[in-house]
Amino acid sequence: MMAHRMLLRRTLLNDVYCGVRQVSSVGFIGLGNMGSGMAANLLRKGKQVVAYDVASAALTALENQGARAAASPREVAQQCGKIVTMLPTNAHVEEVLTGPQGLIASAKKGTLLIDCSTVGPDLSVRMSKEAENNQLKFVDAPVSGGVNAAKAGTLTFMVGGSEADVTSAEEVLLDMGKAAIRCGPVGCGGAAKICNNMMLAISMVGHSETMNLGIQLGLDPQVLNQILNMSSGKSWVSDVYSPVPGVMPNVPSSNNYQGGFGSALMLKDLSLAQDAATQTQAPTPLGGLALQLYRIICAQGHGRKDFGYVFKFLSKTGDVQMSR
Amino acid sequence: MMAHRMLLRRTLLNDVYCGVRQVSSVGFIGLGNMGSGMAANLLRKGKQVVAYDVASAALTALENQGARAAASPREVAQQCGKIVTMLPTNAHVEEVLTGPQGLIASAKKGTLLIDCSTVGPDLSVRMSKEAENNQLKFVDAPVSGGVNAAKAGTLTFMVGGSEADVTSAEEVLLDMGKAAIRCGPVGCGGAAKICNNMMLAISMVGHSETMNLGIQLGLDPQVLNQILNMSSGKSWVSDVYSPVPGVMPNVPSSNNYQGGFGSALMLKDLSLAQDAATQTQAPTPLGGLALQLYRIICAQGHGRKDFGYVFKFLSKTGDVQMSR
Amino acid sequence: MMAHRMLLRRTLLNDVYCGVRQVSSVGFIGLGNMGSGMAANLLRKGKQVVAYDVASAALTALENQGARAAASPREVAQQCGKIVTMLPTNAHVEEVLTGPQGLIASAKKGTLLIDCSTVGPDLSVRMSKEAENNQLKFVDAPVSGGVNAAKAGTLTFMVGGSEADVTSAEEVLLDMGKAAIRCGPVGCGGAAKICNNMMLAISMVGHSETMNLGIQLGLDPQVLNQILNMSSGKSWVSDVYSPVPGVMPNVPSSNNYQGGFGSALMLKDLSLAQDAATQTQAPTPLGGLALQLYRIICAQGHGRKDFGYVFKFLSKTGDVQMSR
Amino acid sequence: MMAHRMLLRRTLLNDVYCGVRQVSSVGFIGLGNMGSGMAANLLRKGKQVVAYDVASAALTALENQGARAAASPREVAQQCGKIVTMLPTNAHVEEVLTGPQGLIASAKKGTLLIDCSTVGPDLSVRMSKEAENNQLKFVDAPVSGGVNAAKAGTLTFMVGGSEADVTSAEEVLLDMGKAAIRCGPVGCGGAAKICNNMMLAISMVGHSETMNLGIQLGLDPQVLNQILNMSSGKSWVSDVYSPVPGVMPNVPSSNNYQGGFGSALMLKDLSLAQDAATQTQAPTPLGGLALQLYRIICAQGHGRKDFGYVFKFLSKTGDVQMSR
Repeated sequence: MMAHRMLLRRTLLNDVYCGVRQVSSVGFIGLGNMGSGMAANLLRKGKQVVAYDVASAALTALENQGARAAASPREVAQQCGKIVTMLPTNAHVEEVLTGPQGLIASAKKGTLLIDCSTVGPDLSVRMSKEAENNQLKFVDAPVSGGVNAAKAGTLTFMVGGSEADVTSAEEVLLDMGKAAIRCGPVGCGGAAKICNNMMLAISMVGHSETMNLGIQLGLDPQVLNQILNMSSGKSWVSDVYSPVPGVMPNVPSSNNYQGGFGSALMLKDLSLAQDAATQTQAPTPLGGLALQLYRIICAQGHGRKDFGYVFKFLSKTGDVQMSR
Repeated sequence: MMAHRMLLRRTLLNDVYCGVRQVSSVGFIGLGNMGSGMAANLLRKGKQVVAYDVASAALTALENQGARAAASPREVAQQCGKIVTMLPTNAHVEEVLTGPQGLIASAKKGTLLIDCSTVGPDLSVRMSKEAENNQLKFVDAPVSGGVNAAKAGTLTFMVGGSEADVTSAEEVLLDMGKAAIRCGPVGCGGAAKICNNMMLAISMVGHSETMNLGIQLGLDPQVLNQILNMSSGKSWVSDVYSPVPGVMPNVPSSNNYQGGFGSALMLKDLSLAQDAATQTQAPTPLGGLALQLYRIICAQGHGRKDFGYVFKFLSKTGDVQMSR
Repeated sequence: MMAHRMLLRRTLLNDVYCGVRQVSSVGFIGLGNMGSGMAANLLRKGKQVVAYDVASAALTALENQGARAAASPREVAQQCGKIVTMLPTNAHVEEVLTGPQGLIASAKKGTLLIDCSTVGPDLSVRMSKEAENNQLKFVDAPVSGGVNAAKAGTLTFMVGGSEADVTSAEEVLLDMGKAAIRCGPVGCGGAAKICNNMMLAISMVGHSETMNLGIQLGLDPQVLNQILNMSSGKSWVSDVYSPVPGVMPNVPSSNNYQGGFGSALMLKDLSLAQDAATQTQAPTPLGGLALQLYRIICAQGHGRKDFGYVFKFLSKTGDVQMSR
Repeated sequence: MMAHRMLLRRTLLNDVYCGVRQVSSVGFIGLGNMGSGMAANLLRKGKQVVAYDVASAALTALENQGARAAASPREVAQQCGKIVTMLPTNAHVEEVLTGPQGLIASAKKGTLLIDCSTVGPDLSVRMSKEAENNQLKFVDAPVSGGVNAAKAGTLTFMVGGSEADVTSAEEVLLDMGKAAIRCGPVGCGGAAKICNNMMLAISMVGHSETMNLGIQLGLDPQVLNQILNMSSGKSWVSDVYSPVPGVMPNVPSSNNYQGGFGSALMLKDLSLAQDAATQTQAPTPLGGLALQLYRIICAQGHGRKDFGYVFKFLSKTGDVQMSR
């Protein structure tokens, strides 16, 4: 019964899409926590969305919000002039774009691929070249902002690509976020994102050890945080995202490090930064050490906690014994 | 002739000080680059200053601005109710305060000692106790801001001490700076300063390696700096003190790292932070590594360059050869 | 005349190879500093060698020692039952083995591929699977020992593969080295090598900073090195490869860090170790920091110097200035 | 009754000491785990020992083995020509030697002070100067080897002092250990010890992360340890003190990290090394990072576990979660 109604709806939508305004459909592949919120905003802003995900539950949920479900990336490619991908790793992006049933092999000439996944800049450059060889267009547009911003449509996109392609992508991106920062040619979106996030991790670890040291020296956490914010020790972390429980309300540290940006996700971005540092031979001593600390944190089982958990990781929880 | 005039002036001033308003004289010990600017501001604001320094040239220079020269810390102590010290290291402070001819042995009961030197919080606590044993008062009040701020009277003081003593100290401090931040009991001024400067060093190294990585990945330095400032990678360094030549005018990096805050001075503050971390057993992985990098920079002969020089230190200047 | 004789020799050898004992020819691809020494030893031990390199000079040099030159990997593959590869990077190995003209597409069933290149263990596993799909055999067998050991035939091979394949490979490997260590299944040869070399780099940096600290504290370098060797601070580096000029004769440090194992090569191995650490999520804090230091050393232009140069990198060469 | 017999024995011993061979008595101050074993060996080798400790139980225990108990360092000083100190920290040594009731103020001219404590080389130099001012002699002689070696009399001493003083000290030291290594002038014993132990910590952390990486890559721990020991990755740790459970019998790692050399003790030695590095401005990047890791280990409550526990600290114990 349910299946029957679904089928009917699909058919009707098919008519609408294919017959009348097919050209304006936006493809969306990758309906995870981030992607499902982003695609929903496209629908809310009036876009027609053709979606695909390996997880059928996510796909059905979006269908119920008005999207058309496709059975494969190829089916998405055949129906859309702009296709957004939001996938978890380099490997997934490579498969969805360049696999035998992938977007690059199946898309119509002139299609614009908008990859919002966080991947290495070198992969984006490679994808872009393969797209170009098939007369497709490509921009990389990873996001700044988490699951809540994805739902609220307030993401910021860091976009790499030609001026024309980025302008074309913005027509889709600005339905899902509040800003699209033009970072340079293809790959520069991802480069900017991993640079920013590496610096963010350094700020977080550095701020955490600074606060812990100050507290051990007898400073009041609130007072020390204020002093840093008035001084040269200020950072985005000290300003709005304190990892010290009780310093700020409504941040993960005041909720047992639930929610926020998980340590394992930060570790993934730090790994991309280190890969890029290896390729370019750029020394990144603090970024490298921050990665190692987050790897230990994850190895000890705290990967799902907000990345401010590093404050707890560095704080005294046990005894320190000295004897002669 | 010169000596004669000097003598005459000294005698006249003596009359003024000793006869009329001796009680309001402010002592000042330590007329280095910072101290001489600070003492000059006291004079400018109308304070009577009794000064001492081991370097007679610095002392004479201040005399010429209206100060009275003392022959020893003891002589300063005997004439002043509030005494500022601005000395280079823990050892100097210990000697000037607790040496046999030092301030604590010679000052009148109730005298307020205001130590503006950057020293370890534990030393301040120890000095405070010795002062208290001799019925003296003590605050630690290290500064934020460099030589230019000292000259301009725009320093910020981070002050540790009792409410009453800090209030009393402010009457002097605010003649030399624009703000006095109350940090907590004695030692908290120094604690706040070394915490802030450790975080500053981490921000500087982290920002430098982030910019270098981004540049190697093809990003424009101006664009990347803007993106960081719009995002979670923002810090005081990215905001106002870029270490990348050409990104900002009027910062040391755009003047071959001349002026500013020397790498060797930052190294000194990082060493104080590590000493404090050892005493409190607080882990400071990034602060520790930043110290090591500045130590290498200094060992390679760049201690006098602004601490933004770490950007150059990490940048490619030579060949990287690979062979099988 | 020369060319004529060469041609004649080739023809004669051709007969021998193809007609009589073709099965016993060993292929060799990659005649760099290491490979040309290794291939020469095969010839010296009586093996018939069919060689290929993109650099014709290297190929001609080996021809003059009795090898047969091939025009492509494919031509090597068609003539040999066992083929050694000794190539500089992951990308070269991937191309020579899996490229359209590569060994895996061209070799006869049952051919044993022996990859002596230093590459990531994951690449070896992937190559092994592709070889198996084509009914070929594969072992990874990276070397321990440098150019001199390659010439002298005293290399040690770290070998990963099935018992049978490793036994079969030893028949070739032991003509080029003194030992073949069985490390486990395919990939374990490379895993053991990058683990060993990461530890070696840590030992080198650690020993260098230890010696520098001791020297600064007033210890005689010879005496300190002896003490470490009698104590728990002993390492292979302290035992036979001191980076401190004058402590040992006949090591690179006593010859201005000429010869030996270049810093850029160590950096390459450390990068492979970090790649493997990322794949396995294994925390490697000291290995990661050692990499960063070697990257700075290379960025400063010292990549060709022996990796003991880190001692110089950490030593005082300039002034350290402190001021108040 | 018991007290009466004790008194009697003391009186008798007093006669022996004071009447006949008083000059040969050896003083011993500091009867902790190490010191009590060392003093017992002096007794066993026939030395007359006058001992002092703040803990009366330790003192009584040694009395029962034939030592004479003194009531203060001063009382020890008045009876002995050579005095061994084995104390836990810099502060204890400073107090026992230079306090108002301390050894330097009370000892007879020509007395030899033998400090076996592990302290900063700068403290030893300062103590030596104060001793010399009072016509006393001083050597620093910290030990290599733990509680078991102290009990067995198999310690190794690293000795700093003049040739004559070291020779004189050996007459006592070799009753407590198997070797006395002459390291140079006063302070060099401690310098050698902290250098060695810093290198040991680096080896331990480096070996632990290497083994963990190799195991994650699929290598058998026994095989990898053997390979390292045959190769340039060899260290004292890989040779005799594996931190990997099951690789070697009879080491702490195979007994849940009980016994051995505690992480908190290693942290103390690493702190002394960093203090020395700060004084000499010697860069010690890996030593500094090893310290930070042991500080985290101690902060997490594992200070009493053998320092090989770092292997567990770095190993995977929890989940690593990735999501898009």
